[in-house]
Amino acid sequence: MTATKKRIGILTGGGDCPGLNAVIRAVGKTVMHEYGATLIGIEDGFEGLVEGRMRELGNRDVSGILNLGGTILGTSNKGDPWHYPVEVASGKVEIQDTSYKALRNFKQAGLDTLVAVGGDGTMHIADKLGDLGLQVVGVPKTIDNDLAATDLTFGFDTAVSVVCEALDRLHTTACSHHRVIVVEVMGRYAGWIALHGGVAGGADVLLIPEIPFTWDSICRKVNERATHGKRFSLVCVAEGAKLPDGQEVLRGLDNKRTDAKQLGGIGAAVAREIEDRTGLETRVTVLGHLQRGGSPTAFDRVLATRLGVHAAHCACRGPYGVMAALQNNEIVSVQIKDAIAKLRTVPADHQLVRAARSLGTGFGDEA
Amino acid sequence: MTATKKRIGILTGGGDCPGLNAVIRAVGKTVMHEYGATLIGIEDGFEGLVEGRMRELGNRDVSGILNLGGTILGTSNKGDPWHYPVEVASGKVEIQDTSYKALRNFKQAGLDTLVAVGGDGTMHIADKLGDLGLQVVGVPKTIDNDLAATDLTFGFDTAVSVVCEALDRLHTTACSHHRVIVVEVMGRYAGWIALHGGVAGGADVLLIPEIPFTWDSICRKVNERATHGKRFSLVCVAEGAKLPDGQEVLRGLDNKRTDAKQLGGIGAAVAREIEDRTGLETRVTVLGHLQRGGSPTAFDRVLATRLGVHAAHCACRGPYGVMAALQNNEIVSVQIKDAIAKLRTVPADHQLVRAARSLGTGFGDEA
Amino acid sequence: MTATKKRIGILTGGGDCPGLNAVIRAVGKTVMHEYGATLIGIEDGFEGLVEGRMRELGNRDVSGILNLGGTILGTSNKGDPWHYPVEVASGKVEIQDTSYKALRNFKQAGLDTLVAVGGDGTMHIADKLGDLGLQVVGVPKTIDNDLAATDLTFGFDTAVSVVCEALDRLHTTACSHHRVIVVEVMGRYAGWIALHGGVAGGADVLLIPEIPFTWDSICRKVNERATHGKRFSLVCVAEGAKLPDGQEVLRGLDNKRTDAKQLGGIGAAVAREIEDRTGLETRVTVLGHLQRGGSPTAFDRVLATRLGVHAAHCACRGPYGVMAALQNNEIVSVQIKDAIAKLRTVPADHQLVRAARSLGTGFGDEA
Amino acid sequence: MTATKKRIGILTGGGDCPGLNAVIRAVGKTVMHEYGATLIGIEDGFEGLVEGRMRELGNRDVSGILNLGGTILGTSNKGDPWHYPVEVASGKVEIQDTSYKALRNFKQAGLDTLVAVGGDGTMHIADKLGDLGLQVVGVPKTIDNDLAATDLTFGFDTAVSVVCEALDRLHTTACSHHRVIVVEVMGRYAGWIALHGGVAGGADVLLIPEIPFTWDSICRKVNERATHGKRFSLVCVAEGAKLPDGQEVLRGLDNKRTDAKQLGGIGAAVAREIEDRTGLETRVTVLGHLQRGGSPTAFDRVLATRLGVHAAHCACRGPYGVMAALQNNEIVSVQIKDAIAKLRTVPADHQLVRAARSLGTGFGDEA
Repeated sequence: MTATKKRIGILTGGGDCPGLNAVIRAVGKTVMHEYGATLIGIEDGFEGLVEGRMRELGNRDVSGILNLGGTILGTSNKGDPWHYPVEVASGKVEIQDTSYKALRNFKQAGLDTLVAVGGDGTMHIADKLGDLGLQVVGVPKTIDNDLAATDLTFGFDTAVSVVCEALDRLHTTACSHHRVIVVEVMGRYAGWIALHGGVAGGADVLLIPEIPFTWDSICRKVNERATHGKRFSLVCVAEGAKLPDGQEVLRGLDNKRTDAKQLGGIGAAVAREIEDRTGLETRVTVLGHLQRGGSPTAFDRVLATRLGVHAAHCACRGPYGVMAALQNNEIVSVQIKDAIAKLRTVPADHQLVRAARSLGTGFGDEA
Repeated sequence: MTATKKRIGILTGGGDCPGLNAVIRAVGKTVMHEYGATLIGIEDGFEGLVEGRMRELGNRDVSGILNLGGTILGTSNKGDPWHYPVEVASGKVEIQDTSYKALRNFKQAGLDTLVAVGGDGTMHIADKLGDLGLQVVGVPKTIDNDLAATDLTFGFDTAVSVVCEALDRLHTTACSHHRVIVVEVMGRYAGWIALHGGVAGGADVLLIPEIPFTWDSICRKVNERATHGKRFSLVCVAEGAKLPDGQEVLRGLDNKRTDAKQLGGIGAAVAREIEDRTGLETRVTVLGHLQRGGSPTAFDRVLATRLGVHAAHCACRGPYGVMAALQNNEIVSVQIKDAIAKLRTVPADHQLVRAARSLGTGFGDEA
Repeated sequence: MTATKKRIGILTGGGDCPGLNAVIRAVGKTVMHEYGATLIGIEDGFEGLVEGRMRELGNRDVSGILNLGGTILGTSNKGDPWHYPVEVASGKVEIQDTSYKALRNFKQAGLDTLVAVGGDGTMHIADKLGDLGLQVVGVPKTIDNDLAATDLTFGFDTAVSVVCEALDRLHTTACSHHRVIVVEVMGRYAGWIALHGGVAGGADVLLIPEIPFTWDSICRKVNERATHGKRFSLVCVAEGAKLPDGQEVLRGLDNKRTDAKQLGGIGAAVAREIEDRTGLETRVTVLGHLQRGGSPTAFDRVLATRLGVHAAHCACRGPYGVMAALQNNEIVSVQIKDAIAKLRTVPADHQLVRAARSLGTGFGDEA
Repeated sequence: MTATKKRIGILTGGGDCPGLNAVIRAVGKTVMHEYGATLIGIEDGFEGLVEGRMRELGNRDVSGILNLGGTILGTSNKGDPWHYPVEVASGKVEIQDTSYKALRNFKQAGLDTLVAVGGDGTMHIADKLGDLGLQVVGVPKTIDNDLAATDLTFGFDTAVSVVCEALDRLHTTACSHHRVIVVEVMGRYAGWIALHGGVAGGADVLLIPEIPFTWDSICRKVNERATHGKRFSLVCVAEGAKLPDGQEVLRGLDNKRTDAKQLGGIGAAVAREIEDRTGLETRVTVLGHLQRGGSPTAFDRVLATRLGVHAAHCACRGPYGVMAALQNNEIVSVQIKDAIAKLRTVPADHQLVRAARSLGTGFGDEA
């Protein structure tokens, strides 16, 4: 232990994700127990860095939070120090470069390293701060599990579990009522949650952004089930699911229905179209933020803890400019620069896609 | 035990409700074990009675279903024998009186008594069949818990648990992001689910059909919390929540927003209006059918079992024309005729409403 | 509101019970929001009152704890001020009357009323403090649900849910392996948890303190199931289950088995005897403290909240010397003196016992 | 598709494990949907093969079982055809070689391939049947996750989740009562469940077979926490945890305590010793079969499904003599012979062990 205690700052940026507190706890316990260092919590993501809102987190603060959803540090979307909304004299809000404030606050707080837990946006900013000379360490956070640099991200297993449990519940209703039930789940660009959640929950049709679907194919599948004596179907659709050739799922429908009762999401659009085309009673459920909140699964707690411990070691003794990542069951360090913006989407011939097809699950692209 | 075995028919009508299978199991086990009688399952509610779709349910059929959501008998909305959709020669569908078919099938199946598990509609039909001389016994089913004749109905506790768990999940997100989150729950005419679920989940504002709300009151509450350092609020709104004097929640808004993205339910309307009026970021979650499906809670299993056993005793030895009900912790028999159509809504000064107000919970009617 | 703010003390005594924090929250929110009073938390039950360990609980302290198991105040078994262990000069511990300290600390803290949340022991002490002139209000807490003065106690539904979920899990194992599985649950003097949990989880045999069982009867039931093609049985046994005429379940067995591997509880004893007598492979699970911990069910949260709000009103404006209780779905005040020590055990002909018997469930007393 | 439909047999052997039904479903759906083959379910493991108890499983049989714990085929410990208990004339039971019956029944049933789902014992038998010329395909099943040939086995994540949830529950009790709570979990030879479950549930001390512990080290840890103001500790101990140098945990204690009430497992032994040595109140919970039963987690459903689909492909088109396995996130085929009996225990310097140590978790070997 060095003569002066190290001071490690930590912030959480971007959307909510189960496991954030498990990361904070792991970083805190490790820097305190292993390095005798001090943990400084920065509030509401980079907003707190720009505005100088920080507080020391002691042993008690990071205890008992392992199973807590959300983040005890808060988070914010107003987070980019280089494009920060500032209220000016006239009362209006201007976007300004406030990066100098972030740097100044970092130094005034006597921080040695900043641990930034967040998604792609957060990693970009961390990287830019690193370029300015700050010691930064990243912990990846994307509930969509779509980061190329890491095999899995925490929060994903919890989201998949929520989808799975919802499908279990809806299954009994669909089955008793002989209905089609459409469940809209997260996934604008990557279909991992729909794919894993749908397989775990036994969905009959899975629609994901990576595999464009046609109405004919979905309806054929649903009708085919009916002729086999299964008078219900569960359709799991990712937010970003799409028709081929750039046809927009929503626009096409808006022309047909303009009544006040229409629901606006893709789930509702899919439900309406299936009902119109097959005549089967159809219902829709939108899981929304239920997938992001609440206590993390055991799996996510272990993963978040491992990433946090690794980041803490890096924060206290280097290397810097890296992000903790899971590769082949091991936690490793990757360069933040290399990790940024490389999305990992579902390959159309991914093993789990093929497995689901073998079970008879439809992806809406079957001829 | 009589020389010839009694034959008891059972059907489930109306919407899905956790605990239906627990009732079927309890009726079946009791008529078989206690009376040596035979249980005949009628498929898809009264539809099966009109169309003669029935099957004997043995000991194995009613075993292992206690924790199963849905109904192994299926259910249907096409259920009223007096107004039954029949396909006629031209291929068109006509509404006909098919009650004679129901009676004929009841007799041809050699049934002694019909146990009808269902809501108000189901009880009406059971009562009319009773007037025609059939021995009928009812088991009340309404997930909304709004039947005056019984203190509690099964399925309600499960629905409340789902709402409560959802609020737990959303709480962490609301809290981390400093947001207002609106959760739409079941309850078109009675606010019991919103009231119990909202209290159990710690909602800050509860909007129920029985207590008209004003936008000013809601927004004042939300803002007041913000000034006390709580930068988030959870609003739990029943489907049937309404503004005073017959103002329609939805219509008022439709004039203002006509873009394709609007969501149509009351939850979305409330969320938009709060966001417009307070400037706080607001999100909406619609629980929908999640509240109706899945495994019943322990509480609902016990209640459903008690009602089922009671109904089985009535079915085998009378009295007939009665419905099993819970009154002051005891299961009793009430006349179906007396039980029909007496809704139990939330009194505005109900003890739990007053308790919630004491905690500081807003009902949208505070000045 | 009076010129000087009222100061309300609160403590939790005796064993852990889900819902304690929900009571603390409800008392706190009500005294602050409705009466502008101050809440003083007393640590570790009466121990904190004797030793003067108290702290003010603000709005933040009682927020966000609704779903938290345990008690933020701590509890203790070293709780009776009249028989309190005191370390004396020699280093030995003497039992002394420290009630004068409790009174002195109450007055020095400027408390107006003491809200005591606890079981029978806690109520006795509260009552004695009341006799000395303190304003006391009780909130009953017994996970066993065995208090005559109240229809239900919080924590009970959670314990029943844990038993029910465990039976669900064990059911699949029993069924796949054709085994007898014995589950030992709480209930030394009253069998409510075993009765409700066992019915909810579909146990085949229920052994409770109020209905003495014989080995013959249990084994006959288990064998009878095997002959009906059900090659497994679930036996739910309360800690206090007993043989007729004062025969001790455990002693009789200890003579037969003295090897080191024996498990000592009643569950294990029952399992061994069933295995010895029927030759069927038998396993035992002891739920123990799992039944007391963790997040309360929605039902228990509502009940605990209602009791807490009621107690807060009493604490701030009287009556004093009362305990909040649930009677016929309403929260009422009963005299603590009347509530003490009146156990409510399961009547042998209780409606739920009879219902379970109708289903074919054995209680070990069938001839 | 060939002229004659293939017939694929399937059996499940050994102990219960969440995900078995998900495997059966995946195998069934794939062989039917993809190959038009027939699935034959063999009852109670190899017992059913020896005794000729089999039945065709249709589409309906393998539907709706994805979330069901246990195995719809049953299982048995009486499974080795080469050492099979046979009742002989005298009524006594002899162990005989009945492998010829297994072969005969396989052929009489017209089976093309046997899919054997089970642990090491099951794989051994499958391998021997393969040596006799049968086409066999294995699916590994060990809840302990201790098979070297595969990165993860289904059921493990569910067991870890059960441990984690139990620790969450016990945490609140330990914390409120200032107690030490010892939780005994599965793991006779490998500590994976204790390690993952303990990290996920925030245990303070983890005792696993691979790292011998000393009483001094455990007690120091527990006392150290007390001096840091944390008056409780959670100790997670695997069944196979041991003292150094072959000292037996249980024997050492048996000499000291011979009273009838002693509990016999290692959890109880650890609890008693901690209480004796530290004077702190200590409780023990034994999770036992709760870890094996019930609905699989979403994670385990996906893994079981992937393994089942893979095994089905092998069963229908080869290769034979292989076992499906997960390696670096891909499902692959490994030779059964290579997979047998290579245990994967926890390396003492495993990354997760080191991570837990960094958090301050004790393994009972710290000086």
